[in-house]
Amino acid sequence: MVTTAQRPIQTNLESNRVQDLELILETLTQKILTYVTKADSEDGSVGTPQTPHNLVKLFNVPEEGQGLQDLFDQVDNILNHSVVTWNKGFMDKLYASTNPVGIASDLLLSILNTNSHVFTVSPALTIIEKKTSHEYAKLFGFSSPYSGGLTFPGGSYSNSTSLTTARSKLYPETKRYGNGSHKFVIFASSHAHYSIEKAAIFCGFGSDAVIRVSVTKDGRMIPEDLEKKIIQAKENGFTPLYVNATAGTTVYGTFDDFNAIADIAEKYGLWFHIDGSWGGNIAFSEKYRYKLSGSERANSITVNPHKALGVPATCSFLLFPDQRVLQEANSLQAPYLFHNNFSSEENYDLADGTMGCGRRPDAVKLYLGWRWFGTQGYRDRIDYAISLSKYLAEQVLSKNELVLVSEFPPPFLQICFYYAPNGVLSEIPNENTNATRFIAKRLHETGKFLVDYAPEHGKDSRGEFFRVVVNSPIVTSDSIDELISSILTLGQQYQTR
Amino acid sequence: MVTTAQRPIQTNLESNRVQDLELILETLTQKILTYVTKADSEDGSVGTPQTPHNLVKLFNVPEEGQGLQDLFDQVDNILNHSVVTWNKGFMDKLYASTNPVGIASDLLLSILNTNSHVFTVSPALTIIEKKTSHEYAKLFGFSSPYSGGLTFPGGSYSNSTSLTTARSKLYPETKRYGNGSHKFVIFASSHAHYSIEKAAIFCGFGSDAVIRVSVTKDGRMIPEDLEKKIIQAKENGFTPLYVNATAGTTVYGTFDDFNAIADIAEKYGLWFHIDGSWGGNIAFSEKYRYKLSGSERANSITVNPHKALGVPATCSFLLFPDQRVLQEANSLQAPYLFHNNFSSEENYDLADGTMGCGRRPDAVKLYLGWRWFGTQGYRDRIDYAISLSKYLAEQVLSKNELVLVSEFPPPFLQICFYYAPNGVLSEIPNENTNATRFIAKRLHETGKFLVDYAPEHGKDSRGEFFRVVVNSPIVTSDSIDELISSILTLGQQYQTR
Repeated sequence: MVTTAQRPIQTNLESNRVQDLELILETLTQKILTYVTKADSEDGSVGTPQTPHNLVKLFNVPEEGQGLQDLFDQVDNILNHSVVTWNKGFMDKLYASTNPVGIASDLLLSILNTNSHVFTVSPALTIIEKKTSHEYAKLFGFSSPYSGGLTFPGGSYSNSTSLTTARSKLYPETKRYGNGSHKFVIFASSHAHYSIEKAAIFCGFGSDAVIRVSVTKDGRMIPEDLEKKIIQAKENGFTPLYVNATAGTTVYGTFDDFNAIADIAEKYGLWFHIDGSWGGNIAFSEKYRYKLSGSERANSITVNPHKALGVPATCSFLLFPDQRVLQEANSLQAPYLFHNNFSSEENYDLADGTMGCGRRPDAVKLYLGWRWFGTQGYRDRIDYAISLSKYLAEQVLSKNELVLVSEFPPPFLQICFYYAPNGVLSEIPNENTNATRFIAKRLHETGKFLVDYAPEHGKDSRGEFFRVVVNSPIVTSDSIDELISSILTLGQQYQTR
Repeated sequence: MVTTAQRPIQTNLESNRVQDLELILETLTQKILTYVTKADSEDGSVGTPQTPHNLVKLFNVPEEGQGLQDLFDQVDNILNHSVVTWNKGFMDKLYASTNPVGIASDLLLSILNTNSHVFTVSPALTIIEKKTSHEYAKLFGFSSPYSGGLTFPGGSYSNSTSLTTARSKLYPETKRYGNGSHKFVIFASSHAHYSIEKAAIFCGFGSDAVIRVSVTKDGRMIPEDLEKKIIQAKENGFTPLYVNATAGTTVYGTFDDFNAIADIAEKYGLWFHIDGSWGGNIAFSEKYRYKLSGSERANSITVNPHKALGVPATCSFLLFPDQRVLQEANSLQAPYLFHNNFSSEENYDLADGTMGCGRRPDAVKLYLGWRWFGTQGYRDRIDYAISLSKYLAEQVLSKNELVLVSEFPPPFLQICFYYAPNGVLSEIPNENTNATRFIAKRLHETGKFLVDYAPEHGKDSRGEFFRVVVNSPIVTSDSIDELISSILTLGQQYQTR
C-alpha cells in the first residue's frame, strides 16, 4: 500500500550553501594568496621530504561532520605536506604549477560540475571542446575541416585510446569479435613512455607485443631498425598494427624523425601515432615547430596542455586528421544516453567517441588559457623555456664536475647530466647513482630544489643521472645558477662524506 | 660552440601572478555567489535548450592574449550557455551540483596542481588516497587491513581497469602474452552499463564477448540464467572470465542479488565485479545497506562519489578486498619514475597499480567531503534522497495520467514513468515516446526542469519513458509537486497540440 508521506520533505544538509561558499571562498582566497606569495619569496620552499609513517596519523575520516574550521585545518595540513609546484625550485616532473587563469578554469568547472558526455548537459563546453581541438589539430598540420579530437584523462589514456581506435579502424571485425587469431604487435622506441606497454596489456596484446626499436645515442628511433623489425614480425606470423613515435621523450626530450617513420608506416600499413604528451606543444613555437615535421602524416597525436603549457592537470588531447574516426571506432550508441537530437553528420555527444562515459570538460581549461595568453603567449612560453633549457645545458658544459648526457643544444626542456668528482665518472654505475641520489636527496632537504633522476638506458648504462626539467616561466637564469651552485656544493659534501 | 647567453634570462609571462590571482578570485567569488543565489531563487533556471549553431560563433581562440576582462566575459558566456546543476530542477543525470566543500576541494587540487602518481610529489595526497580507499572499502565489508583501492577518472575507467586486472590475476600469462588463444567471455545483465561492452572492446575481447544475462521485470539479473549461460559458453569453447553485477542500474536503479551471483562466480571461477558507480554509495545508509548484501564477496567494486554524494566530477573508486592485486596485475616498474624509496611491502607510488601515469588526486575530494559531512552526513544524504524518490513514486502512482515503470518503492533514486493520456498507454511505442519527448522538451524550455528519458528494454518495449533522478539535498517534496504538476499541464498541451 502506498502511504503518502508528511510534507514538506526537506533537509538542511546544504541549506546554508551560499553562506558557506562565501566563507570558504574568502578564506581560501587569503590562504592561496599567502601561499603563492610565499612560494615566490626569498624563503620560499618547494617542500621537504616526507615519509608515509609521519603522515598516516594526520588524515582520518570522521563519524560526524566537522564543518568549516576543520576544512581550513585540513587544507593547511595538506598544503604543508605537499610539494609546492609554484616554487621555482620545482623542476622534478614534466609539469609545474598552473597559473591564475588555470585556477579560474578549475573553479569554473567545479561550479558547473557537469559532464561533457552529451550536448544537452554541456552545450557551451561541447562546442568549446570541438573548436579548441580543431584549432589545436591545425597546429600539427591537420588542415581538414574535420580535424580535431577529444580530451582524455591523461596522456596514457589518450595513447591507449589511440591504440584501440587503430585496431577498430584497421581491423573493424575486432570491435565485435576481439583480437581473435590476430597476433598484433606494436612498435615503439626503447625510449618511448611505458604507457605504450600498459596500452598493449590493456588491449589484450600483452607487454611482449611491444617491439622496442633501437635508438641513436641521443634517443631517436632508428627508422631502419623499425623497418627491419616490422619485416621480422611479419615473417614470424605477427600482425604489425601500430607504431608509436615520440615528440619529446620522457627522459631526454628527444623528437623522433616523423617523416621517416611515416614512410615506413605507410609502406607496411601501420597506424602511425605520435605521443606528444610532453613535446607536442612545441607546435606553438614558430621557431622550433620544425621538430614536428611529418606530424601532419600521423593518424593520431597525443598532446598534453597540462605539461608544457601550465594548464591544470589533467588535460590531454588525442587529435586526428579526421576526428570522426573516434566515433566510428568507439561508438556503441547506448540509447538511454545518446538521443541523436541533431540531424547532422556531426557528433555533439562526445562520450560516444570514447571508451568512457562521464567526462570532466578538460578542454575548457586549455581554451581559457589560450584566450588569456593567446597563441603568441604560448609560443613565448615554449620559446622561453627552450632558451632557458639551453642556458642550463651551457652551465653544465662549463663546469668541470658536471657531465652532460643530453645532446647540445638540448632537444627540449630536460637537461640530463651526472655529477662527477673531478670530472671523471666512475666505471661502477652504482657509484654514479649514489652521487646522484645523495645530491638530489639533499637538494630536496634544503627545500630549495626538487629534481628527478633516471637510469641511463642500455647495457652500458653508467647509472642514474639528474633529469632537470625547465618548464615554468617563473624559472630564470638566476634560479638555474643557484641550482648549479647548490649541486656543486653538495657534490663536494658527497666526496667528503 | 657554446655561447653563453646574456643574463638574466627571464620573462614577464606570469610576473603578476599574485595580483592576477587576487583579481580573479575576488571577481569569480562574486560571480559564483550571485550564480548560486540565483539558482536557489524563485526565478532560478536550470538553463534552456541550446543548439550548436548558436554557440559556434561565441567561442574562438585568439592570436594575442586577451587578459582579465575577456576571461570574465568568457566565464559569463560559458555560465550563460550551460546547464545549472545547482538548480533544483536539474534531475536529468546521475549527478547534480557539488557543494561548498566540493568547490573547496577542487580549488585545493588546482593550487596544488600535482600528480598522485608517485609519493615524492604527492605525500599527503597519497596517504589520503590510501586511507580514504580503505575506509570506503570497509563500508562494503572488505575488512582486511589490505582492503582499499585507487581512484580512476570515471566509472567506465574503473570498470575497464577491473576487467584487465581480473585477466592479469586469473590468467597471469596474458599480461605478457595477451589474450592468445583464450576466447574470453564476460557476463553482465541486459541492464548493465554500456561501459562493460566498451571495456570488452578495449581488452580485445570484442563487444560480442559480453554475454547479456536476462533480467526480471524490475531489471534484476536472473542468477539461473547466468549459470546457464556460463555453462553454455564453456561448452562452446569460451573461457568465462568475469561477471559484472550492478548496484543501482543506470535506468532503473536496481540492485542485483550479489550473494546469488557470488555463489555462481565462485563455482565457476569467475572474477566477480560489482559496478556500483551509482548505487554503491548506499553503503553509507544503515537502513538500506542490506541491498549490498554479498558485496563483501566481490573481487572488485566500482563506486563513484561524484554521483550520489555530490563530490565534484570526476571521482570514481575501484575497491578491492586486497588492493595489492592492483600493483601485482598492472605494475611495469618503469625505473625512470618509480624509485622504490621505501623498503616496505606497501606501495606508495600509486600510478604503478593503474593503466595510466599522471593522475589528478581525486580521492582528496571525497576525503574533504567526508570530513565536512561525516559518515552521518553521507548517510543522511542517501536516506533523504531515497525518501524523496519514494515520495515521487507515490505521486506518480496517485495520478491517473502517469504510469509508473519503476517498482514500488523504487530501488534507488530514479523514478521511471510514462505520461499516458487518460491513463492508457498507446500500443504504438512511438506514440508514447513522442509524448515523453514533447513534455521533456517543453519542461526544458521553461528552464524549470531538465529530466531525461530512456527506452524500455526488450522486444515488448512500450517506447521511451521519463527517468527522473532525485539526488541533490536541495530538492524537496515541493519541487517534486511542481514537477508533477508541470508534466500534467504539458501532457494536456500534448493531447491538444
